[in-house]
Amino acid sequence: MASMIASVIDLNADLGEGFGRWTLTDDEALLSVVTSANVACGFHAGDPATMRRVCAWAAERGVRIGAQVSYRDLAGFGRRAMDVPPEELAAEVAYQIGALEVFARAAGSRVSYVKPHGALYNRTVHDAEQAAAVVAGVRLACGTGAGAEAEGTAAGGAAGGAPGGAPGGDAGGLAVLGLPGSLLLSAAAEAGLPAVPEAFADRAYTPEGTLVPRREPGAVLHDPDQVVAQALALVRGGAGRSLCLHGDTPGAVELAGRVRRALTDAGVRLAAFA
Amino acid sequence: MASMIASVIDLNADLGEGFGRWTLTDDEALLSVVTSANVACGFHAGDPATMRRVCAWAAERGVRIGAQVSYRDLAGFGRRAMDVPPEELAAEVAYQIGALEVFARAAGSRVSYVKPHGALYNRTVHDAEQAAAVVAGVRLACGTGAGAEAEGTAAGGAAGGAPGGAPGGDAGGLAVLGLPGSLLLSAAAEAGLPAVPEAFADRAYTPEGTLVPRREPGAVLHDPDQVVAQALALVRGGAGRSLCLHGDTPGAVELAGRVRRALTDAGVRLAAFA
Amino acid sequence: MASMIASVIDLNADLGEGFGRWTLTDDEALLSVVTSANVACGFHAGDPATMRRVCAWAAERGVRIGAQVSYRDLAGFGRRAMDVPPEELAAEVAYQIGALEVFARAAGSRVSYVKPHGALYNRTVHDAEQAAAVVAGVRLACGTGAGAEAEGTAAGGAAGGAPGGAPGGDAGGLAVLGLPGSLLLSAAAEAGLPAVPEAFADRAYTPEGTLVPRREPGAVLHDPDQVVAQALALVRGGAGRSLCLHGDTPGAVELAGRVRRALTDAGVRLAAFA
Amino acid sequence: MASMIASVIDLNADLGEGFGRWTLTDDEALLSVVTSANVACGFHAGDPATMRRVCAWAAERGVRIGAQVSYRDLAGFGRRAMDVPPEELAAEVAYQIGALEVFARAAGSRVSYVKPHGALYNRTVHDAEQAAAVVAGVRLACGTGAGAEAEGTAAGGAAGGAPGGAPGGDAGGLAVLGLPGSLLLSAAAEAGLPAVPEAFADRAYTPEGTLVPRREPGAVLHDPDQVVAQALALVRGGAGRSLCLHGDTPGAVELAGRVRRALTDAGVRLAAFA
Repeated sequence: MASMIASVIDLNADLGEGFGRWTLTDDEALLSVVTSANVACGFHAGDPATMRRVCAWAAERGVRIGAQVSYRDLAGFGRRAMDVPPEELAAEVAYQIGALEVFARAAGSRVSYVKPHGALYNRTVHDAEQAAAVVAGVRLACGTGAGAEAEGTAAGGAAGGAPGGAPGGDAGGLAVLGLPGSLLLSAAAEAGLPAVPEAFADRAYTPEGTLVPRREPGAVLHDPDQVVAQALALVRGGAGRSLCLHGDTPGAVELAGRVRRALTDAGVRLAAFA
Repeated sequence: MASMIASVIDLNADLGEGFGRWTLTDDEALLSVVTSANVACGFHAGDPATMRRVCAWAAERGVRIGAQVSYRDLAGFGRRAMDVPPEELAAEVAYQIGALEVFARAAGSRVSYVKPHGALYNRTVHDAEQAAAVVAGVRLACGTGAGAEAEGTAAGGAAGGAPGGAPGGDAGGLAVLGLPGSLLLSAAAEAGLPAVPEAFADRAYTPEGTLVPRREPGAVLHDPDQVVAQALALVRGGAGRSLCLHGDTPGAVELAGRVRRALTDAGVRLAAFA
Repeated sequence: MASMIASVIDLNADLGEGFGRWTLTDDEALLSVVTSANVACGFHAGDPATMRRVCAWAAERGVRIGAQVSYRDLAGFGRRAMDVPPEELAAEVAYQIGALEVFARAAGSRVSYVKPHGALYNRTVHDAEQAAAVVAGVRLACGTGAGAEAEGTAAGGAAGGAPGGAPGGDAGGLAVLGLPGSLLLSAAAEAGLPAVPEAFADRAYTPEGTLVPRREPGAVLHDPDQVVAQALALVRGGAGRSLCLHGDTPGAVELAGRVRRALTDAGVRLAAFA
Repeated sequence: MASMIASVIDLNADLGEGFGRWTLTDDEALLSVVTSANVACGFHAGDPATMRRVCAWAAERGVRIGAQVSYRDLAGFGRRAMDVPPEELAAEVAYQIGALEVFARAAGSRVSYVKPHGALYNRTVHDAEQAAAVVAGVRLACGTGAGAEAEGTAAGGAAGGAPGGAPGGDAGGLAVLGLPGSLLLSAAAEAGLPAVPEAFADRAYTPEGTLVPRREPGAVLHDPDQVVAQALALVRGGAGRSLCLHGDTPGAVELAGRVRRALTDAGVRLAAFA
């Protein structure tokens, strides 16, 4: 019986997606639900004071901290695809990870993984150049990037001799969280980074297992029972190592809590992947 | 005789102060002159790709990397004083340091010190609250901040057990470079951070040893001979551990080179302070 | 008897204070309450699509449109005072007015007045230089500014021969809405612009008639009955030509509606000032 | 003989493309060469004080003012294509035009035309949706847009009854300057706006008359004699009503001046198109 098979799953959600006076997510409530927090890093949302606060809350609760990296686009909330040249994109990704790392460390934690946001997430599913650029940015932030500037010398020394010297630490670098089958995940795996596929509790899937595009009717599930049922099915089906929950709509946090309870009631163990 | 006394001085200059399409400083040329590079971190200038490039060049030349932190003000180049609440300012400072740290590490180096830019530099000379906020931000970035969130526990552990785990490393934290007599330097010293005073080769001093305000006539020295002479006098007089040179005006890089040669010709040893 | 004296008052509120994905105010609801809408213009809040929408809604309801101008500070929501040089500040104010004018016109209306936001509002109460700069910016936008570039020639011609050719139209220029006794209002009046004082329904007043500073306890009134009572008292006492209501807190729109009903029930006529 | 045929041409160039502390173009020098100035409006470059100054200079010299509208992308100088939804893009275009109009009017002039910048220019060559959005934004700024909110009523009244009440005035709306054969120009023409094709003195053309893509070798002409010769050939061939010159590279202003002299020496009359 499926329900008897011991499963383990991570729950991730976007957090800290306000900016200055504006807020979007109920960060404290969400941090009681998830095991991994995708923290906005200032490019589509997320001001430094919010980043600091969210990292402190996450560390207190033992929730893993991930860098939710984005195109530089506050006005469009990172939802507008941009033709950013690879060199720039890699540097922008690394910049965001580094900024978040400071707050993760100050809270006694670390940046454990990276998840692209919005249009960057979607684009790196199929755009090989941008997928490679994001991975290059992640490696740069690990201190093992094509920052071949100093490869093998000081940088290598710092990363090797000083465990903990860079995000991702000595455990093989930062993990990359993304869509199963995406070019992002394959590029991450090729680069030797842990590539972690995620599933969506509240998004409709096609029979082939891909996501129904957002613009099509029924793309997003709104019925709580349906969301919970799909979450269970996805976890049992092994559809990913992490389950993405959303917290930016009314009732979303409660629903996320329901999903969590349903999973634990079904004997699924919740554990971060990184 | 003064000239026989062996002196040591650091030469610092602002670098990477372009943004995207715009450039301001001849970074490669300046890096052949200075021993410490104040790298712009994106708030008044400095895009990620430029930060990466400047860090790589600096590391290649053995030039120390410092975070030139600023108010968030691209339109005003960080020259407009802002009433940023202390909590926000501290987080903004830490954010900038963390972002730069990624590029410094990727180049095999580290962020060694912090120097506020423009209006933040001027304001923290006499504004105790903002001076304290900048120092809090620096400590936050060192992993020893009032990020008392986790003090003594994980954060302490990370910083302690993993030397090199944060900017400033195990050598007592990041140094702070600023104006002699400023509240910034005294706040840094009180916090246990190396507080490094700097002198200006091209700024006129009052008989009391303070800077002539920029708006007064003669505040900035333009005669190369005068600049060189003042540089020598300041170093011999022990006016600071570092000498600030400028590179954003025509002829500035050449002049900086002349100052450097004059100092070495006079037997002064050039060495970074951090 | 006071209640028999026919009074007329304008009700103003801040609108359109979202940015991209973020919203703050319930603009449609507020537009059913106020007679003047202070529309954010992009510097502290307000993206172009929102500005367009709010202007369309305001025009449909016969609500006057005002430019809520601010320092350039999205991260701080315009609440951090900035030392912007007067020339820059004037141009920034004019820029914002011009941008809003496009949407007001497209909706069949006009920008009728200007009200500074947040820190700029507070600073121009007592800072003569910035107050003058704001007024210079307003005049610039009226086509009668110290844009003395073309004064008397083409600019004059355009403004004169083509009534409606600039914000504020032919009726003496844009009005300026501000705090009674502020340097901003006196500078506006000196410049020949209608200077309109406003009162606050939900802010405590000192016996001398000035506002209790926000940081003091009791500065903001939260009891609905008290707010309504103060609104009536202010209007009867002739404390201003406009009454400022707030819409960015829970329950604020309902309270604003209550104030409106209490005023009309008391025989006060609601009418925009511009 | 071609050279005896009286020709008329406009010369346009990008101006005001600095931002705060940064400058790019020698605006005063260029304004002595061109007949139309594409003024940056703040989204890819161009701060309000610069916009004001450039408009004043242009008006003094009788140079027409055009709005050089862009994606919101200071970091990328508007050179990174963005998937901006049409509604947002239209509003962003109108916003920029409105902001510039204030400074044009203050200088006694008007915004006479619109030219997209960088990636927006390139994308609207072949992207029908974005081309339509730009045109919608231009019409919005003319007060005749699908601001159908108020069409026929107040908006119509304002635009009709008050000639000069909006950019573009009573002469049929703002002109749109773009690439011959682009969807932008056809969309503009369909909307009843003057659609003005431009040619490039310093870009190589294919035998079919299209531009050689920038990434191909020889795409940009550097030899001054060749540039001058091509300018003459293009004008004689009737390749456009306006000739685009560049001013952001060393020697560019001088070269622009040479082109101008060569044209006038050949009997070509220089005249703005709008």
